[in-house]
This record gives sequence, structure tokens and C-alpha cells, in this order.
Amino acid sequence: MSGRKTISETLHDGVGMVFDAEEVLYEEGTGHHQLTLIRNPVFGKVLVLDGAVQVTSRDEFIYHEMLAHVPLAAHESPADVLIIGGGDCGLAEEVLKHRRVGTLTQVEIDASVLDFSREHFADFNAPVFDDPRFRVEIADGAVFAAETDRRFDVILVDSTDPTGPGAVLFTTEFYRNLKRILRPGGIVVSQNGVPFLQPDEFSKAMKGLSSVFGTATCYLVSVPTYFGGHMTLGWSTDNPASLAVSEETLMERMAGIETRYYTPAHHRAAFALPRFIETLLENAVKS
Amino acid sequence: MSGRKTISETLHDGVGMVFDAEEVLYEEGTGHHQLTLIRNPVFGKVLVLDGAVQVTSRDEFIYHEMLAHVPLAAHESPADVLIIGGGDCGLAEEVLKHRRVGTLTQVEIDASVLDFSREHFADFNAPVFDDPRFRVEIADGAVFAAETDRRFDVILVDSTDPTGPGAVLFTTEFYRNLKRILRPGGIVVSQNGVPFLQPDEFSKAMKGLSSVFGTATCYLVSVPTYFGGHMTLGWSTDNPASLAVSEETLMERMAGIETRYYTPAHHRAAFALPRFIETLLENAVKS
Repeated sequence: MSGRKTISETLHDGVGMVFDAEEVLYEEGTGHHQLTLIRNPVFGKVLVLDGAVQVTSRDEFIYHEMLAHVPLAAHESPADVLIIGGGDCGLAEEVLKHRRVGTLTQVEIDASVLDFSREHFADFNAPVFDDPRFRVEIADGAVFAAETDRRFDVILVDSTDPTGPGAVLFTTEFYRNLKRILRPGGIVVSQNGVPFLQPDEFSKAMKGLSSVFGTATCYLVSVPTYFGGHMTLGWSTDNPASLAVSEETLMERMAGIETRYYTPAHHRAAFALPRFIETLLENAVKS
Repeated sequence: MSGRKTISETLHDGVGMVFDAEEVLYEEGTGHHQLTLIRNPVFGKVLVLDGAVQVTSRDEFIYHEMLAHVPLAAHESPADVLIIGGGDCGLAEEVLKHRRVGTLTQVEIDASVLDFSREHFADFNAPVFDDPRFRVEIADGAVFAAETDRRFDVILVDSTDPTGPGAVLFTTEFYRNLKRILRPGGIVVSQNGVPFLQPDEFSKAMKGLSSVFGTATCYLVSVPTYFGGHMTLGWSTDNPASLAVSEETLMERMAGIETRYYTPAHHRAAFALPRFIETLLENAVKS
């Protein structure tokens, strides 16, 4: 194996993915953080933070399209959109494809993350930085949600895993603040992990969301580099009609937007959960 | 890392999964084959053949439920069912849960595979060997399909990957023979790989199937240990009505069968493909 450099994911105990590194493009280790960017023959650029894959240039569209287009197509008028996290700006790129979006605010805790993404992931995020609707706030997302006077129609929580610095984005207090800054009829979508490997994290998030919002459910996305079966995205709202938008209406709202993963039919299908996820959800919501 | 034994998947170049081995339960290497069975803290028993995960005791239900219940619930009268491959007998277990199945024939090329599975995967396959409807033929699946006089209502091709010994199960000649032994209105479901990582294999299979059957499409399953996003299962039939069975009918036919992944709603949803898979399919079918 000498001469072959690989990078291993360590997010889960006992199992992980390993990526060949054709080239190490960037490496930074501080006391608490280890950030590595490699080039992999299958996934292109792969960004690994503290042993967990954050984004790859080859499969980012899957997660970002489903996180953005499902709530935006379901919402009647998503004028003001908020992203909390989302440092690589791949999510912002998808949001800004919607002409119905008037403003997009991205709250990022660390300014250097955006510089990094702009430099290394320009392939997909370049259009974001030229869009006058896009504005960045450098702030802690939990503090921003607690303090801002602004209100939003759609809120997208593109967090890291619920361990470490991202943990505050999985608390009930944070969910209450999201509700506070959400306009009537609004939708919150949140990264809720891979339930097959992280059932407790999934249940905790859904329990917290359901204690705050009238409707709390989730939908599915299958992301190659977030392995372990389906990832779930939480869907929290006080507007249950957002779950019943017809395929025709979704098609009208997506007109002119090219996608590689999202389709209106797949949008609707993504809410039909496998039994074990449905059961975890039911138990979390009623507890 | 000394003292920590791991086993790596080598199916794909440049990326793979790595499993900690708490214990190596079985190991056998011949000239052409390397078979290893380990115990992993997340997936339980993990069987790896020539660097590709075949089955694990913890996630086998996902693949086997979707491979079995979708065609069986869609078929009006699945009296006689054929499995080609399926050595671990997890698929047979799901098939035999249907009382409407009168006979299940499993064609396995290697008798020792069944002995091995019976010994090591009794947790899920024990009921199979006591079921009088179950019968095994030790034969090459491709030869069986070419020569048998029997006919089947549902045929399930639970093959390994289309490289190596499983390659004959991905040829157009094999598909023609499947059609020959399929009763009118019958359905063939086949393992068609993970299109994100194996687009050429997926396209070749769908092209072959569509050249033989009036209807050739596929549906989705997200299996933790077949990583790389959705796996697809091919759906080939001359009975397009099998794609339009109502949720109510599916529920009636599944009554009394407990599942951990399959639901009638998820059954129907699984045919709504992500755009990039839909595009690969359209191009394969029309070429």
C-alpha cells in the first residue's frame, strides 16, 4: 500500500468510507479541527472535516437539490430564504435558481469558510457570489435565530453532524427560535442524519421539531458520500398543505430550472418512508 | 492501527467501504475466489466475496424485502416463483412469507453456498429450509433458463456484480430465456447495480432488458452496504398494468406480512426515479 494515499472517514465507529487521494489540495490542522481537501478519481474534490465528508464536487448536487427545491417548489411564495450553515454555497446556488426568491441570507459562523469554498468549489458556487439577492451574515446560527428581527418564508438548516460545533443546531431552543423567525405558512428543512446508522440522532431531532411545529415529518435523499442508506431531511411547518402540492403545481414552479436529481414526481415520492424510518418517526413524534 | 483488523471493499476503484472485524468467522481463498465472513459492530455478520460485500445480517432485510415484495404484491397470482442466485437465502425467506406463493425454486450454481448460508445466516434464513414449497436446483442459472420446461409467474435475479461469474446473468441471451420461461403477465426483477457508480452496467442491463420485454423500467432501494446512492432493481414484463396496482390492493396482498422496510406507499414511490437515473434509463431504452 506504500505510495497510495487514502483518507478515511471516522464519523461512525466500526465502518467507514475510504477515498484514494490522487492529490492533497489543502490540509489544515488546528487543536480542534482537521480539514482536508483531496482529489479523488470518483468524487472529484472531497472535503473532509474532522473525519466526516462534508461535500464532494461530483455528488453535491444530490443533497443540495433535494434540500433546496423540495421546500421552494412546495411554498407558494418563497420571497425570503434563510440558510444556516451551508458553507460550501452549493445549497445557495440551488436556491438562487428560483426567480421567485427575492432575498437569500446565509448565516455562516466562520468567514474563512466562504473564502475557502469560493476558491475551491467555484465549479458549482461561482454564480452565487455575483447574485445581488445573496447576502452573508457572519454569525453563530443559533444566536442569529434568537436575535434577528427579520422573518423568512423558507429556512434551510444545512448543518454538520449533531456532535461538536453543530450540536446547537439540534436543540429544541433553536427550533423554537426558527419558528419565531418563520413567517406564517413557512417551511423549515433540516439535515437530520442517516437513520439506519444514527437512529438516536434522528429521533432526538424529530422529537424536538414535533414539540415546536404543528407538522414535523421528513423526506428521503440517497447521497453516495453520506453512506448508510437514506439520509432524512426534516420538514417542519404549521402549514400541512405544503405536503400536498400537486405534481402539476410543482412542475409550474420548477419551470426553467434544470436539475440532475430532483423531479416533481420524485419530490412527492420522497415522503413515502421505509417502515423502519416511519416507525422511528412515529415513536419520536408521540413521545 | 496495530491490533485492529479491517476488511476493505475493492469493488470500485478509488473509493470503498472499510469494516472493522471484531472476529473473522470464516476465511477461504482459492485461486479465483476469496471469501471472508467477519463480525462487525455495526452490520453484524458481513460476507465479502472477492472484495465485494454480498450480505450482512443487519441490513439484508432492505434489499431482500424490496426485491421480493414489490413484484409479489404487484402480481395478481404469483403461484410459481423462481430465484436465480440468492445464495444466502434471505430473499427466499421474504418470498415464502407470501401465502399466495405455491412453489419457490432457487437455482444455485454451487451447493456449498447453501450449506454455508444455512450454517452462518440461520438468523434470517432458517424458516426457508423447513418450508415444503422451497426447492433447490443446483445448476448454472443461465443454463437452467435456457433448458427448463417449467414456467414461472415471478422471476427474481439476485446476482452478484456484472463482472466475473455473474456476467452471464446480464446478457441479452439470458434475458430472452427469462422471457421464454415467464408465464403471460409475469414479472422479472433483477439486481441492476448502483447507477451513480456503475452507469455503464446499469445502461447495458436496461438496454438488454428493453430489447426483450415490452416494458422495462426500474425501481429504487437504498442499501447501506451497497453504497453509492440508490441501487436499482430492474422491472421487466409484458404486463404494464403491474406498474399501476393501487395502494389498497398492495395492502390487501401484504396483509399479515410484517416488514421493516417495505410499505405499499414506498412500493409505489420507489418507481419515481431521480432525474439522472431517469435519463440513463431513457437513453438505454431508446438506443
